[in-house]
Amino acid sequence: MKEKLDAIIPKATAKRLALYYRYLRTLHDKGIDKTNSKELSEALQVDSATIRRDFSYFGELGKRGYGYDVENLVNFFAKTLNDDQLTKVALVGVGNLGSALLKYKFHQNNNLRISVAFDSDKNLVGKKIGDIEIFPMNKIKEILEKEKLEIVILAVPSEVAQELAEELIEIGVKGFLNFTPHRIITPNDVVVQSVDLTNELQTLIYFLKKKKEEL
Amino acid sequence: MKEKLDAIIPKATAKRLALYYRYLRTLHDKGIDKTNSKELSEALQVDSATIRRDFSYFGELGKRGYGYDVENLVNFFAKTLNDDQLTKVALVGVGNLGSALLKYKFHQNNNLRISVAFDSDKNLVGKKIGDIEIFPMNKIKEILEKEKLEIVILAVPSEVAQELAEELIEIGVKGFLNFTPHRIITPNDVVVQSVDLTNELQTLIYFLKKKKEEL
Repeated sequence: MKEKLDAIIPKATAKRLALYYRYLRTLHDKGIDKTNSKELSEALQVDSATIRRDFSYFGELGKRGYGYDVENLVNFFAKTLNDDQLTKVALVGVGNLGSALLKYKFHQNNNLRISVAFDSDKNLVGKKIGDIEIFPMNKIKEILEKEKLEIVILAVPSEVAQELAEELIEIGVKGFLNFTPHRIITPNDVVVQSVDLTNELQTLIYFLKKKKEEL
Repeated sequence: MKEKLDAIIPKATAKRLALYYRYLRTLHDKGIDKTNSKELSEALQVDSATIRRDFSYFGELGKRGYGYDVENLVNFFAKTLNDDQLTKVALVGVGNLGSALLKYKFHQNNNLRISVAFDSDKNLVGKKIGDIEIFPMNKIKEILEKEKLEIVILAVPSEVAQELAEELIEIGVKGFLNFTPHRIITPNDVVVQSVDLTNELQTLIYFLKKKKEEL
């Protein structure tokens, strides 16, 4: 049943799953059993019609009427987002942003963490940031294979992103969280999630301009 | 005409404007006059039907047939994204992520930059990261007003995000690039763009899991 439900979740809905998941867990931690689209909408600043449509994809779990069952949804999301098992990822590129990401609390309340980092800079290799050791690039194949890591956070200079991604794909990497502004091109069985900070700021500026025109 | 066109651009399209803008500028810099949805699709990893639909919102500029005119589109996007004028923003919270953001090259090829930073930590106040000076929080009203800044990058701890946002809105802030996992609640005339790093990683994990089920 779940598999089938998963298969029809649209991309825009899928992108909101982690958001719903986090908020439902805060409700669950507070001992709250039920919620509804209005409450979720206010807390998450997502249109309540969007929330109802999103939740309709979750089958029985998303049935309205007397509200959504918080615990069932938390369990459903944990499974759907693979948060019921630990996901370890590697980070490549320990510059300013990479260092900050190594210190970022991905693991806080979540079953995911950066377990290893790589950089080509000899001055960084061998050092640790937090608990995470920095290895040289020529160790990457060996370590990713040994640790069975298939997700890489890319925080390298833009110019090397594509070439590096191709090398990593060859050694079995299947997913990239790409912090470079370069849109890396990958085969069909590889997933890329891009976090482009300049784009985000420009998009904000655009929406702000629009908002002013409306008012 | 432009105003009218702007008004009907859907949110999902709007979020891709900065992406199109950057790529079209790289084409323009290379002296390339024309492009088409297939080329854009390959470079940006966005479905070509989506690109054609997006571009159809740009009126005459987005007409297909013999392709899109690169220079006209660059000028249109620069105006639409306010990149034809300098946008200065403030950063609040100079922790690990905040420091990395102060060093991040938002301004590279773009007309936007962080011009001032704030933190409550006395050890940080008065220091500079790059060219950007760090001021105490009690100076924020005065400086934002003087510098006419209305966009704030929030890189503070989650727990203080909402309260701080409310204070900033009171002194005239109209836009937030919110790096905290907390979804800040704001009045209707304020725009929030959220960059939630854990969500991004979880979404990647979800899409990767789905991809494996498909194959």
